Amino acid sequence: MATRVIGAASLARDLGRWRQDDAAGRGEAENGKSADGDSARRSARPAYLALAEGIRLLIHDGRAPLGIALPSERDLSATLNVSRTTVTSAYALLREHGYLISRQGSRSTVALPPTVVHDGTKPARSLLAMMAQPELPTIDMTYAAMSAPAEMSDAYSFALQSLPTYLGTHGMDPVGMLMLREALARRYTERGLPTEPEQILVTLGAQHGLRLLLNVLTAPAERVLIEHPSYPNAIEAIRDVGARPVPVPLLPDGWDLDGIRSAARQTAAGVAYLVPDFNNPTGLLLDAAGRTELAAIARETRMTVIVDESMVDLDLTGNTPTPPAASFARGSEIVTIGSASKSFWGGLRVGWVRANQSLITKLLGTRSTMDLGTPVMDQLATVYLLRNAESILAQRREQLTARRAALLDALAEELPDWRPSSEGAGGMSLWVQLPAPVSTALAATAPNHGVLLAAGPRFGVQGAFERFLRLPYTHEEADIRLAVKSIAAAYAALTPHAADPLAPLAPLY
Amino acid sequence: MATRVIGAASLARDLGRWRQDDAAGRGEAENGKSADGDSARRSARPAYLALAEGIRLLIHDGRAPLGIALPSERDLSATLNVSRTTVTSAYALLREHGYLISRQGSRSTVALPPTVVHDGTKPARSLLAMMAQPELPTIDMTYAAMSAPAEMSDAYSFALQSLPTYLGTHGMDPVGMLMLREALARRYTERGLPTEPEQILVTLGAQHGLRLLLNVLTAPAERVLIEHPSYPNAIEAIRDVGARPVPVPLLPDGWDLDGIRSAARQTAAGVAYLVPDFNNPTGLLLDAAGRTELAAIARETRMTVIVDESMVDLDLTGNTPTPPAASFARGSEIVTIGSASKSFWGGLRVGWVRANQSLITKLLGTRSTMDLGTPVMDQLATVYLLRNAESILAQRREQLTARRAALLDALAEELPDWRPSSEGAGGMSLWVQLPAPVSTALAATAPNHGVLLAAGPRFGVQGAFERFLRLPYTHEEADIRLAVKSIAAAYAALTPHAADPLAPLAPLY
Repeated sequence: MATRVIGAASLARDLGRWRQDDAAGRGEAENGKSADGDSARRSARPAYLALAEGIRLLIHDGRAPLGIALPSERDLSATLNVSRTTVTSAYALLREHGYLISRQGSRSTVALPPTVVHDGTKPARSLLAMMAQPELPTIDMTYAAMSAPAEMSDAYSFALQSLPTYLGTHGMDPVGMLMLREALARRYTERGLPTEPEQILVTLGAQHGLRLLLNVLTAPAERVLIEHPSYPNAIEAIRDVGARPVPVPLLPDGWDLDGIRSAARQTAAGVAYLVPDFNNPTGLLLDAAGRTELAAIARETRMTVIVDESMVDLDLTGNTPTPPAASFARGSEIVTIGSASKSFWGGLRVGWVRANQSLITKLLGTRSTMDLGTPVMDQLATVYLLRNAESILAQRREQLTARRAALLDALAEELPDWRPSSEGAGGMSLWVQLPAPVSTALAATAPNHGVLLAAGPRFGVQGAFERFLRLPYTHEEADIRLAVKSIAAAYAALTPHAADPLAPLAPLY
Repeated sequence: MATRVIGAASLARDLGRWRQDDAAGRGEAENGKSADGDSARRSARPAYLALAEGIRLLIHDGRAPLGIALPSERDLSATLNVSRTTVTSAYALLREHGYLISRQGSRSTVALPPTVVHDGTKPARSLLAMMAQPELPTIDMTYAAMSAPAEMSDAYSFALQSLPTYLGTHGMDPVGMLMLREALARRYTERGLPTEPEQILVTLGAQHGLRLLLNVLTAPAERVLIEHPSYPNAIEAIRDVGARPVPVPLLPDGWDLDGIRSAARQTAAGVAYLVPDFNNPTGLLLDAAGRTELAAIARETRMTVIVDESMVDLDLTGNTPTPPAASFARGSEIVTIGSASKSFWGGLRVGWVRANQSLITKLLGTRSTMDLGTPVMDQLATVYLLRNAESILAQRREQLTARRAALLDALAEELPDWRPSSEGAGGMSLWVQLPAPVSTALAATAPNHGVLLAAGPRFGVQGAFERFLRLPYTHEEADIRLAVKSIAAAYAALTPHAADPLAPLAPLY
């Protein structure tokens, strides 16, 4: 494969005010410590060190994905208006510390030192904790999922009443019951995306739908573009089918569509996985203009875009909803997955894929290698929930808005130097930037303080996002406040070394 | 990989009375036709033709798997006590018709002519039919699955009553609720296999459990031994993870353990998938001595045996149940998958894996790439069904016994020259041998006669089992009788050419 490259202009843009940021960063890092001689020494440090530090933070934050080639020294020195020696020295320092790899005659490509590469994508710890202690009193902030709405019992009562019609059959339903597919098709049509029931496959949740699509759409070693950060289980599913996630950094204010276009061209990716309706973890929303552009990119590059709409019902902007991404497609370049398990309840396992009929047929062919159908009761309950969706969802959006405010308040109070990278337009979580790359250390020690956390690197590839943490606002407000207090205690208990963001290029742990 | 070989003695045993069988076959095939000059001509045909025909039928019936090398001509002539010329001529004829492939200096290996290789494993036709016409009045004999027992509504009422405890949580449950894992562990312990709840992972059915195991236990291109015939969705799952099914023929009276041992040695398979408790489709049961031997083979060859107990509750012998296969293991060489969806109802999607804790942890790690948990309602309903299992299952066994008798009666009346290869000890289907290799042709035309059939080749690899059909006895007796009448009509409507088993080595369709 051709090596992807980041242009000098892009890198300069991402670095931002790297000299000034260095000073700002120092301000944050004081964090209760008195300004001392150490800080004075650093403000005087040479430009090459500040540049190296700036690039290192971009690497840790996933903005400069692993494997990407940096600009040539000449280009970068011209663009940043610094001496060539400054860039050469910065690259040399990064190389020395394992953040760059150079091969004879090739550009330097981004890497991570072995000591900071984490297998941050495996939630095995908390799952095992669940098995051993299912009644653990700890607040679990690794899930962004709410408890059930009050209507859930009504939904299953309806299902129980409707059940006798189905008890006379063998019950195995790999396609989905017609009544449910009709309801889902109607919903898409109402949202501006005309849909027939034959274009819907009912699955065991959005994750299951994604997995079926990846099975059918990817070949071994296929590149799959993802926004970065992205949903951990999606990244793992891409890897599990033998494909390779190609991260395209998500900018603080949204999608880098030029980056998506050039990554698609450079890697010849056949598939992309995106969450334009309230990206998980950031909550960002891609606007209509962006959707038009995304569809155009998909057509130009012959790439199928899998749009995950799991969070689409959780729009907290109060604005008119943005039309479905697939409604901007001209052909079959965008397929959609959806879920009742996020909108309504995770104990209900129902999702779906919306695609053209020929793809639905292929998905059916592969499904029987994994499972034999969606439970009848959960399908019937979903029919009820969709019929009553507007009132249930209005209430959930109200709850989430209040809980998000509670989380923001608690953070401002307990951890004032933590910065939600965006308030987010919707969804169930904030993506919070920490003053230091300690996310994994924090997740490792948080259980001792009564809270389970998913470290930032779970939402990226190859160890990125050590300076970030996803904080869901799905718990009740009192629990959110308690959780933030616990996180603050865990954070305060980290070693000063782990909490010092300016330790220049030293191993982090 | 080393080519697998079938020994002369094995081949001779499988051929049986190949000269006499030839005559018996002719008798069957008369099937309403008067004995004529043609049949007289054939009884006088030379030995090489009878031998070629005998081997060809073994190939079609899956007893000589594709790719296996036949014995040398010298060995086979000595073992069969025929002239070397007879074997040479038989092999030459098979080669000419595409049933053998020879390469310079290598043994002849079994093949199928391109014209008779079917992709018999894809149920796409009937699934698409379901989507388009969900209320099709056709009797669907492609599924071996019963309608729900009367207690199913009670089970879901219990679930609804128990639900409030879970509504306060996010509901996502990749492990399985403790109450259910405890009930399943107790059940294994009572059956003679001491089990802790931590050794159980609750899944979305046995197929899902199999898929998780294959994900964890197999590497790409790994060989996975299967009994042949076997369960179609298992074969497809093996292929879908990139592994390769290695068929070991199931003999008319049971498992060929020597064949399993030598196939395991020759292919270095790391995994086997077997259904010793009422093989699907044959209904055969592996006895305790066989299980002891199977565990020994697994240990000797360092092979993990996945034992699928989906059908274990459907023992129709009336005898004391055979202890679980895994109870004959000394270590972790046998893992077990089970299902409530076969024993109780297919509309309920609950299965499980029983393994050691370290494997369960690995399965949990891979599960999140496919789905996020088992529905709460179905888990609760399963708790109820297990509590009431003895009475529900007694009734289901009684129903199945009566329905099996109805199927056997209807076959004897309508299709007297069809032979159930075994009455089967349990399960939900008969494996029926047809007088001619017309299974695919029959499945293709049966829908026009009001019945959907799964062709024999779906239960094997690479086109074997054209002379077999799986007939489930899960429908009510009246429907079974109607289905058999429809099948008989479809069979009678096949072209005389397709129905003539003695057309010597001509293309079959």
